[in-house]
This record gives sequence, C-alpha cells and structure tokens, in this order.
Amino acid sequence: MELQLPKGVRDFPPEEKLLRDELVGALKSVFERYGFNPLETPMFERFDVLGAKYAGGAEILKETFRFKDRGGRDLALRYDLTVPLARFVGMNPQLKLPFKRYAVGRVFRDGPIKLGRYREFYQYDADVVGSSSMLADAECVRVALAGFRALGIPVTINVNNRKLLEELLAKGGVKKSKAIEAMLVLDKIKKVGLGEVKKELKEKGIPEKSVDFIVTLSTQKGNNNEKIGKVKEFLGKETEGLQELEGLFSYLEGVEDVEYDPALSRGLTYYTGTVFEGFVQGSTVTSSVCGGGRYDQMVGELLGRGELPAVGFSFGLEPIMDVLAERGREKAKTLTKAYVIPIRNAQECVPIVERLRDAGVNAEMDLNGRAISKNLDYANAYSIPYVLICGPKELEQGKVKLKVMASGEESLVTVDEAIEKLNV
Amino acid sequence: MELQLPKGVRDFPPEEKLLRDELVGALKSVFERYGFNPLETPMFERFDVLGAKYAGGAEILKETFRFKDRGGRDLALRYDLTVPLARFVGMNPQLKLPFKRYAVGRVFRDGPIKLGRYREFYQYDADVVGSSSMLADAECVRVALAGFRALGIPVTINVNNRKLLEELLAKGGVKKSKAIEAMLVLDKIKKVGLGEVKKELKEKGIPEKSVDFIVTLSTQKGNNNEKIGKVKEFLGKETEGLQELEGLFSYLEGVEDVEYDPALSRGLTYYTGTVFEGFVQGSTVTSSVCGGGRYDQMVGELLGRGELPAVGFSFGLEPIMDVLAERGREKAKTLTKAYVIPIRNAQECVPIVERLRDAGVNAEMDLNGRAISKNLDYANAYSIPYVLICGPKELEQGKVKLKVMASGEESLVTVDEAIEKLNV
Repeated sequence: MELQLPKGVRDFPPEEKLLRDELVGALKSVFERYGFNPLETPMFERFDVLGAKYAGGAEILKETFRFKDRGGRDLALRYDLTVPLARFVGMNPQLKLPFKRYAVGRVFRDGPIKLGRYREFYQYDADVVGSSSMLADAECVRVALAGFRALGIPVTINVNNRKLLEELLAKGGVKKSKAIEAMLVLDKIKKVGLGEVKKELKEKGIPEKSVDFIVTLSTQKGNNNEKIGKVKEFLGKETEGLQELEGLFSYLEGVEDVEYDPALSRGLTYYTGTVFEGFVQGSTVTSSVCGGGRYDQMVGELLGRGELPAVGFSFGLEPIMDVLAERGREKAKTLTKAYVIPIRNAQECVPIVERLRDAGVNAEMDLNGRAISKNLDYANAYSIPYVLICGPKELEQGKVKLKVMASGEESLVTVDEAIEKLNV
Repeated sequence: MELQLPKGVRDFPPEEKLLRDELVGALKSVFERYGFNPLETPMFERFDVLGAKYAGGAEILKETFRFKDRGGRDLALRYDLTVPLARFVGMNPQLKLPFKRYAVGRVFRDGPIKLGRYREFYQYDADVVGSSSMLADAECVRVALAGFRALGIPVTINVNNRKLLEELLAKGGVKKSKAIEAMLVLDKIKKVGLGEVKKELKEKGIPEKSVDFIVTLSTQKGNNNEKIGKVKEFLGKETEGLQELEGLFSYLEGVEDVEYDPALSRGLTYYTGTVFEGFVQGSTVTSSVCGGGRYDQMVGELLGRGELPAVGFSFGLEPIMDVLAERGREKAKTLTKAYVIPIRNAQECVPIVERLRDAGVNAEMDLNGRAISKNLDYANAYSIPYVLICGPKELEQGKVKLKVMASGEESLVTVDEAIEKLNV
C-alpha cells in the first residue's frame, strides 16, 4: 500500500487544526450573537437534489463526486451548503420564517488541481430565508463586519445591487441581452484594470458611448451618498434597485467600512438584488474574504413553489487563514501548558499531573520513561511552555522543579505554587 | 425533484446541533486538558489505504462507499478515524512520539438500516500512538472519566486485558484455536446472561470443566484487588497479562468507578492488551457510551513497519445523546436571548439591537415588518426568552417595553436597564 492522500485534499495537523477551530469558534459566537442558528446537513445528498434545475448548475455538476449506495441509489457529495439549506427548508414546512441559519462544513468539487484550489474545502455560510426586507441584507453585512472585528482583521465591504446595475446598464444603452456579459466584465475591474475592461466591453459589441458611460459610472469617486446621488442623477428617477440600495444603506447608518461599488456584480447568475464582497485593508491577500448577496428566486424555484426570498453570504476560510498568516498570527502546536517529567517514579507523578488538570492547567506527562534530555526535546518539539521535573529528590522535599522553557529559568516550588504560576 | 434525504443520514436542525456542539465542545476541552491535540483528516481516502490488510477488514469494506475522481482514482468515504490516523502517522515520520491526538468527525458505512444505525455517524476518538506503557492506557481511562464528569453523567468503566484473558482461558483448558470464539461468547455475558453463555460455550465444543472454570472466573464478586488476587491464584504465577492489568490499576490509584471485568474482550480482533468499556450508572441506555483498548500491532502492520504501540478509545455520541435526553436535558431551539420588535420604525430599532449585541446579548429583530402578535408567535416558536417592544411611543420616552416571555411580565425600561437584566 502506498501511503498517500487523495489528490486535492489535506490533513490538518494540530497546528493547523487548533487555529481553524479558534477561527470557526470565534465566528460561531458572532453568528449566535446576531441570532443565527446552526444547521448541519449530511455530507452527501441524493443526486437528483444536487442536480436539480436551479441548483448548482452544469459547471458544478461536472465537478461533483457521484456514487451509489447498496440500494443502487444515486448519491453525490455536496458541492455547497446552499442547496442542502433549500432542501431542508423544503422538507420542513413547519419552520417559522425567517429562518436565520449558519453552517460550517466541508464541501467537495472534483475540479482541476491548482494552487490554493482543493477538492475538499470549507464553507462558512450564513443565510436568512424568508425575508425580502433590506433589513435582512443589512444584517448579513453587519454580521460579516462583526466577524472580522472578532478576528481583529480590518475589512472593507463593497456593496452593490444587481437590479440597480441592470437599470444603469439599460440607461447607458447596453441591450438587455448584453447586460450579463457586461456585468461579468465590469466585475473584474479591480483585478484587470480599466483599460482591459474597456477593451473587453468593446469586444463584446457594446457601443463606445455605453462603454464610456459604464466606466465613468464605475470609477466615480466620493462617499456613498455622493456616489448614490450621482447615480440617481444618471437615472433621472427613483428605481427599484436604487430604492433597495438606499434602503440597505439606511439600515447601515453609522457603520463604517461599507462602500458602494457600482461595478460589483459577483459572477453567479442567481443573485437578484444586493451583492457584497469583503476585502482586507492593507493586505497582500487580494481575493475576497467574504461575499454574498440576495437570491430571491433560487430556493423557491428549487422547491418548485415560486419565490422564497433569501439573502446570505460566506466567509472564505482559506483566504482568512492566509490573512492571519500574513499578520504574523502564530500557530500553536498544542494547547498543553505543562509537561511533567518523572524520574523512574511515574506512579508518584500521576497524582501531580492530575492535580494540575483539576486546577485547570492543560497538562501531560512523559508516558515512555525517557531520560530528562529526551523529555525536554519532546516538550520543545511541541512548544510546551512549562516543564515540571518531579524526581524523587524534589518530591522528598514536597516540591517539583519548575522550568520555564523560553528562558530556561528553574525554580524549586510546591505543586500549588506551580499551579499559581501556570494559571496566570 | 423529490425532496428527500438519502437513506440512513440525518439533518441536525438547530435544537439538535446546539446540544451536539456543546457536547463536542465540552469533550474537546477535556481532551486538551489532558494534553491531546486535534487532528483532522479528509472525509475520503484512497481506497487502497482503507482496503489495506490490517485496516478495517472485509466486513467493513463491504459497507464502504466507493467512488472515483476525475482521474479515475479509486476513493472511498472513511469508515473510521483510526485508519486515517495510522496513515497520517506513516506519512509524517517527523512526528515526535507519543502522538496524543483527538478527532471528532463523521464516518460512513453503507450498512443495512436499523433503528439507531446510520450510514453517516460521528466518532469521537482519542488515541496515544507510540507508547507501550500502561501509563498511556491509564490516561485513556482517566480522560474518558473526566469527559463524563464534564457532562455530568455518572459512568462505570469496565476494564480487562486480552492477554490476561487468553492466559486464563489457556489455564482453564480452552485450546488456543477456540480462545477467540470463547472470548466473543463471554463478552456477551451481560447482554444474554449466564445460562446462554454456558450453552454457547458448550456448543463451541469447549469442555464442560473449562466452561465452569470460565464462568466462575467471569462472575466472581469482590473489589478489584480481590478479583485480581483470585485470578493470580488461578494462574499460580505472574504473567504478562496480569502484570499489565496490575500496572494499569497502579496508575489508576484513587480513581473510582473503574472495575475489573474478567469477561470483557470487546469484539474487535485487533486489540492486543487493555480493553475497556463505559456504561452509565442507573440508566436505561444499556449500550456502552465509550470503549477502546490497546492495539499494538495494527498501526505498525498497516504501515508495514512492525509494531507501533497504540491505545485509544471512542466516545459514543449517539448513546450519550440518548442519556442526555433520558436525564431530561432540554434542547434549546436557539441561543438568542432577546427579540426586538419595531412598530413601523425598523430603522430606529437597528441601533437598539446592535447595542444589545455590543453588550454581549444574543439578539435579533423582526425583519419582516409584522404585527406584534405575529412577532410574539415567532419569539415563542423559537423559545426566545425576552422580547423588547420598541414602538415610537416607548422610544419617545427613551425607553422600551421589556416582556419576559415565560411570565408575560412587562416593564418599561431604558435599553441599558434591559441589558442589565438580560446579562444576569
């Protein structure tokens, strides 16, 4: 047997897993602070659910891991957390709406392997199903910002509204049939730059006048009010998209770090209104660290029962991990604080390590009867900060030798004194 | 499309998921207190790893979900967390041993559907790889007991040693070729009773004299010392198995609720020494809530590199959930504590719900502009304990109407006063 991982998947050893758990836990607390409840769905679904019209679509289905159970039923590993949410809502008509749920879990895509693309990766989603009010969109933006505050990461959220963007493109002379294409080109403006966007828009057959209009619009300066004001001028009237965007901002009064970005559309076709994306301020990590929007048709259409409004977003755990690394966030190799070293007297040391644990100190002891130097190597390898050497000589005096691994400082103390020191 | 779950898998709606998260979190803290580190491995592995000799074995492979990736590679959903642990240890030769790891995660078995048997279920494991000392076995027993203490569940751990059991069977005249069969029969003594065990042993062709010997041995009364003393008498000498068991008990001095059970063997063939199983005291849940043992050959043989000692165990999350239910443990439907109801003044209520959250209160607000009665229904449906009615009349006085849902009691208070009350 060859010892290998499948292509595109990873182990998370303790130093990775500890930080991920912390990240997941911090965001979980924030979601609960904002009244979101956790939902967990299976790792696999019936293929007919994942493959339904209005679900992930053909591109995603090509990358779906499929298999059969012993009864010959078609199953597939889930490729996102949204389709299972819709299925859950559909199967539980007793649910009181709006249903505010968060979910974190692994999803699977059998795609080509590239740097930073995995076949098993995490999604961390929050969604509100059953409210068409911009209050729900504002909640999503607020909880995203609160999440990054909890992580100590400064983020700017760019916001737009797909209806408004469509209205503007129409006003600018872009035909309805070209609108989606134009949006997708515009969406790349930050990545590829102004010149490239102009070129691509022209290549798509969008008239030069419209291109100039779009580009002017997309690159306008000013604060949100000024930018929205200019857009209103362009349009010459209140529109649905404009009302939604203004509504959203009215519920975000006093919130910093939210910017109206007239060019933002996000690629996915299922968004119907608000779209937003978060970027880290002053970071070399240029990919978005969160993103989402309103999708009023998808859930209802999937369930075959007409519109069921929904809005939600994902935190991008992978880029967030990159940001934490960039910010010098250290990865602990263990949460163990104390390592007890017996000297041929293990049985007498067991009560000592137990006393440490009872006092709330994460502690372990040598299990292999090794020499002191080997034990210090072990403590070093796991970066355990304190070592208690508990030889017969020390114990005879009712004491242990406490060694601070960082400084090498040693002191002869009682177990209670050691606990006091370790619990600071 | 039919809205259905695949056979044998479950959704965990908020009221299930919240309690499971709490359970998983409590045990995680205990593992970390005992110096175990978290490891996460992928949901699927290469089939040749899971199907290797010395891995799960033929019975499990029959129930393994298999599939291929786009490169045609044979993959399979993991059926346990132990084989992936062995693979991880084999792929990471730089790991300092002993490696003490815990892991919680879903595993998959495409078995027949029975009551309480699922095709996707959780395992929560802790293992120590790389120590042959009974100290490691004692750590496993101690951390298991600490886990149940943290959950407030009184548990007795039954302990035995497979070597000792083999030695005793040999001494009692059971041929080596019959030893495993005899063990499996004996193991059922608590389930099927003495008479049935006697009958089955005789059917297996074990001589009557040996059967009597075994049964006497397995049902002897007394405390651990007395029982071990009698076993020593039977054997007439110190043996390896006896030394291991005595060693284990020497490291468990002062620990209550651990009982030597001479009949215990646990079904699996890969155990090589210590075996143990935990049962809840005074419960109608008769299945074990944890179990494990020493398996000194499996990891090494799987890796093709000779013996690599290991000992570990699993918590049984499903029976533990049953025990919590039996003990009347309530399931929260949400962690939300406060629900803010605007009266056609949502925009003014947003800062109120945000103030609650900033003060550490889990809070949400009506997103749908509903009437008060509908909103009270909603708060009731989710069992949210406090409601803040924030109509223009209340806000004019700088106050909100705080309603305690359980008693119906209402009071007019400032937001700060409400926060004080909610934060108790």
